[in-house]
Parts: sequence; structure tokens; C-alpha cells
Amino acid sequence: MAATASYDLYYWPFIQGRGEFPRLVLEAAGVSYRDVARLPAEQGGGVDAMLSIMRGDKPGIPPYAPPFLVDGDVTIAQSANVCRYVGERHGLAPDDAAGRAHALQLALTVADLVDEAHQTHHPISGSLYYEDQKGAAQLAASAFCTERVPAFLGYFERVLAASGGPWLLGPRVSYADLCVFQAVAGLDYAFPRTTARVKRQTPVLVDLCARVAETKNVAAYLASERRIAFNEMGIFRRYPELDDAS
Amino acid sequence: MAATASYDLYYWPFIQGRGEFPRLVLEAAGVSYRDVARLPAEQGGGVDAMLSIMRGDKPGIPPYAPPFLVDGDVTIAQSANVCRYVGERHGLAPDDAAGRAHALQLALTVADLVDEAHQTHHPISGSLYYEDQKGAAQLAASAFCTERVPAFLGYFERVLAASGGPWLLGPRVSYADLCVFQAVAGLDYAFPRTTARVKRQTPVLVDLCARVAETKNVAAYLASERRIAFNEMGIFRRYPELDDAS
Repeated sequence: MAATASYDLYYWPFIQGRGEFPRLVLEAAGVSYRDVARLPAEQGGGVDAMLSIMRGDKPGIPPYAPPFLVDGDVTIAQSANVCRYVGERHGLAPDDAAGRAHALQLALTVADLVDEAHQTHHPISGSLYYEDQKGAAQLAASAFCTERVPAFLGYFERVLAASGGPWLLGPRVSYADLCVFQAVAGLDYAFPRTTARVKRQTPVLVDLCARVAETKNVAAYLASERRIAFNEMGIFRRYPELDDAS
Repeated sequence: MAATASYDLYYWPFIQGRGEFPRLVLEAAGVSYRDVARLPAEQGGGVDAMLSIMRGDKPGIPPYAPPFLVDGDVTIAQSANVCRYVGERHGLAPDDAAGRAHALQLALTVADLVDEAHQTHHPISGSLYYEDQKGAAQLAASAFCTERVPAFLGYFERVLAASGGPWLLGPRVSYADLCVFQAVAGLDYAFPRTTARVKRQTPVLVDLCARVAETKNVAAYLASERRIAFNEMGIFRRYPELDDAS
């Protein structure tokens, strides 16, 4: 535990995206951090500050893409990896090797869900517009809503049954709970019809998400201006034609 | 270090796929393991044994999908997470927190590359045949070959420059080297024209991959029958029409 730690988080300033997972872990842990790309340039902020680190202007192993965390001299990338790093240091991960492996396993399963959600509106390429891949998007979203959302949410429901709850890994909250909460929030936003339908089959997961949202630090964060609203530039986009498309 | 450890690895028996990353780490570490789904049913093997664990027939946190590792009472899933778990226990990961975070960061960046390689032949859905999404596949593969392969391999080249080599994280080999080696081997197989073209820009990475292939345990494994050949059921598929498609 390094309660006085201060971190610099770098992510695109206008979206929740993959940066929201580390943001939530930092907020829930109550540690001090700067969300650098959202600060003005005169405070060392802005997107240019982020791009400079991605170009390798800082010594050490560079990140491939945001989000990344700067902890002193060290830069750490990959959303689930940053969640793990912060969670293990600040009381949001189990203490034993098996529990730590399970927390990361769940965060990475969430990352798979997030990738597949992104694929629904960009099945062909991230560098083409949605409008230029709408036909493929319709087909991808249909498979996602029909098969994948029930499979993923059903999986988290089974994990809660296996651990006995109330949290995914048992008696203590971990960063895995925050990651699952955020994924379900994204699904609620982007695919409201699909998600409402699937959630009727996963009541324990629904309770878990409500419990996460009510924890003190998370509730304060969600009510603050630091929480960027979901929008159609992020990963979870509300395109009604993709929700329960068939 | 638990030199006498014995693990059970579970993955689809006919492909390298995402299971090949943990397989390589287990082989390179020289630890004892069973590749359970490839064993006969009378030895507790076969795909049914794997599916039974995925259904939750074993106590504890279940896996969402293969590959997963059984270490005594504990089941651990997600390919990069299994690599990390084995690598950290058996001398194939740095000892410090920053180095461990960087090893996982690189393994997860490889996992992103692998996901995108899979998307080239299944851009719309994993549950449709390639033949039913060939048009979208052509477009996805074009973007992958033109933009993504150079971006990923160029990134690993920059990491080698930043660390000073000879391994990705400096003086000691880690599971990150094995993961990058396997991804480049897959690209060599599936996209030979694209990969040959891009590799001319990444000579240090090419040297790294040769060095991995020559390490004693890896060389013995690659020459053995335990190494399944690449094929068109796996993630890296040689569909000539997708290689340097435009």
C-alpha cells in the first residue's frame, strides 16, 4: 500500500473507452491521480502530451496505445494490466497468487467483451467510418446480441455462484468487480433492449453492479464531472439499429 | 520456483490457437505438464474433459473459454494470464513489479494482434463460416496487412531499442519473448508476403525471433510432435487471397 502515491493516467479525453477501467480502479481505491490528457497544455496536459509518450519520448518501455499509467519512471500500458497494477497495490485485489490470477482472468474476459462490443460497429476496420461498414456491422451486432451478451453475462453470473459472492471473488471487492460493472454499464447504454432482456437471467450480477455503483468512492465519482458521459465516439455506442438487430 | 510442479493445460487438440502461448511457456520453462484434451479419454483426456470444466463441473472460479491451466485445485484462464502465472513461477518473468507489468503489457499487446489476425477471416462473427463473410474478410485483411502488421511489429522493434535487448525486456528472456515469437511465426504462416515485407523494417525483431527458436527447450519442442502444425482451423490461416490484399 502506498496511500500517498500519485499517478498520471493517459487516455483520450473525450470518451470513457478502455481508459474508464483504470479510472474506476483509481477512483475506487481513492488514490491521487491526474487524468493528464484532460488537463490544459500549460499544466503539461492535452493529447499531445499523451502522443509524445506513445512516440517514445520518455525513457523505458513505451506503450503501444492508451490507456497507460505513469508511476514515477515507469510507464504501464494495457487497460487490464493497469487495473491489476493499481488494484494489487491499493487493496482492490486478492493477496494470494490464485486470487490474483482469477482477478486478472475476469478483467481480461471483460476486455474480450469490450473488444467484441467495439467490433459491432467496426467489424472491418477501426480506420473506416461506421457508415462505411454498416452492413457488416448489422450482421456482427446481431451475433453479438443473440449469442455473445448472454454468454458473457451468464458467465459472470456463474462466477458469482461459484465464489458464493457477494463480490465476484468472494468476500472482498476487487478490481474485477469494477471491470464487470463498467462493461454492464456500457452494454446498458449501447444495447438497452438486449441487455434488459439478458439481465432478467442474471439477477445476482444485476445486484453486484448495483452494489459497485453504491460504494462510496464509486458513487462520488459517478456523480462527478470526472465521469465522462457515454457517447458515440467511444466503444459502447448507442446505435438503435444495432440493438437486438436480427 | 516449483521445479517439480506438474500442470494440466486444456485447449482444443487440433490447433495451435491461443493455447500455443501457454504451451510455449511451459515448454521453455521445462516444467512437467499434460496437454489434457490431446490425451485419450481413458487417461482422463479428450475434449469432453475440457468442456466439463468449462461447464463448471470443478469447484472454484470457472474459465470462460480455453486455454486454461489447472494447478492443483486452481483453474486459471486467459492465455496471457496463464503465460504470466507460469512465467513468474518458473524463471521466465522479471522479478520486480515494473518488469512484471511490462511483461504482461507485451503479452497483452500480442493478444491484441492475435485478435486482429483472427478478425481478418472472421470479421462478422466467429459462428459464421469464413466463406459466408469473405467480402468483409477481404476488406478487414487489407487494413490489417497495410496498417496493423507494420504498427505491431514496428512497436516490438521500438521496445527492443528502448530496452537495449537482446530480449524484449533487456538481459533476461521472459514469456513476453515467447509470445512475440509465436505471433510472428503465425504471421509468417498466414501472411507470408506481408510479413516478409514488414520484417525488412524490423531486423532486431527478426533476430529476437531466431534467438527464441534456438533456445534449447524451444528448439526441442518445435522439432517434436507436440508442436501442432499451423492449419486453417486455427487463428493464423493461410488464405492467399487475404495476404497483402488490396
